[in-house]
Amino acid sequence: MPAANVRRRLSVEDRRAELLELGIEIFSRHAYDELSTDALASRAGVSRSLLYHYFRDKRDFYLATVREMAQRLLDATAPDPEQGFEAALRSSLERFVNFVGENPAMYQAIVRGGVGSDREMEDLLEDVRRVSLDRVQDRLGVASPPPALRILLYGWVGFTETATLEWSKSRDLPPEAMVDLLVGTLTSSLPPHLIQPAPGQRP
Amino acid sequence: MPAANVRRRLSVEDRRAELLELGIEIFSRHAYDELSTDALASRAGVSRSLLYHYFRDKRDFYLATVREMAQRLLDATAPDPEQGFEAALRSSLERFVNFVGENPAMYQAIVRGGVGSDREMEDLLEDVRRVSLDRVQDRLGVASPPPALRILLYGWVGFTETATLEWSKSRDLPPEAMVDLLVGTLTSSLPPHLIQPAPGQRP
Repeated sequence: MPAANVRRRLSVEDRRAELLELGIEIFSRHAYDELSTDALASRAGVSRSLLYHYFRDKRDFYLATVREMAQRLLDATAPDPEQGFEAALRSSLERFVNFVGENPAMYQAIVRGGVGSDREMEDLLEDVRRVSLDRVQDRLGVASPPPALRILLYGWVGFTETATLEWSKSRDLPPEAMVDLLVGTLTSSLPPHLIQPAPGQRP
Repeated sequence: MPAANVRRRLSVEDRRAELLELGIEIFSRHAYDELSTDALASRAGVSRSLLYHYFRDKRDFYLATVREMAQRLLDATAPDPEQGFEAALRSSLERFVNFVGENPAMYQAIVRGGVGSDREMEDLLEDVRRVSLDRVQDRLGVASPPPALRILLYGWVGFTETATLEWSKSRDLPPEAMVDLLVGTLTSSLPPHLIQPAPGQRP
């Protein structure tokens, strides 16, 4: 019995992962309100009752999908610990802008939540902001920034979010110029001593 | 009959304005979920049925209240047409930071929607952003900004929103320093020729 149990558990996880994968494809092309639960199940190639076995309702499926997208975005943009602050920031933002350029609807869903935006979506977005902020603070070596720096960093996360959301709709600026805009806004506002590379560290 | 009609209509408007005023007071001190409709009506000193005569339901009352708050924020921060770009920006942001400092819960309700954040709240916030953006573009004299400038201005509105939201929670930075942070982030990113005062204009 244990063996069967293990197999069954794996299969549940695999099936859930498969449904999330389909959810990402579907919600990257369709707004939340556009599809009924029946249409959703039919597009995912499963029965309505199977979908409900894995997710409480359509909203739960949507939330799980957006949460998975947000995790992929964070994974794709982790800063390189070997690089100095500005190089790590630039490389991380290059991957960020590329990710958004390839998955604009996905990014818009994370940031504006499409329809179905609510407290849980807001909490999810706050988590993404918090991780972004922690990464920058960590690379700057300031665990407890003074108020002016904390507020500046928060503001810059909001800058990045809003500017990139606007860019994702038209992509009428080359990705490199977007990266320059995001990097430049932060580095031109930070106290210079914070972004000096440490002796012996690559800039 | 017409006279009575007119009187009745005025009184409807006055009563609605009075309820909105009470709504602003209530929702600046209580979260949306904290109060039942009965508690809300009782705090506003009216019956539940009277409240429902003016507003469809609790959410409708909340939305109307937040819409009124957003309008007051926009009214309080209109740029002075007599001033040059940077002086008008600074004076407008001084009034903005003061407004938020005096009404932090109100600002948080506009920006994060408290509970009850949804498409209508999102649309309302987009309107506030759009007015802020139009004001800056108007003062810069760029009706159709090129992509890099458009995206920068959008980003700065997001910067202002997020930085000020964070500040509103603790207010651990003097208002003047907040204004400097907001003004500096925009002016240091704008092409210098855009913010030169016109000949004969006060800077």
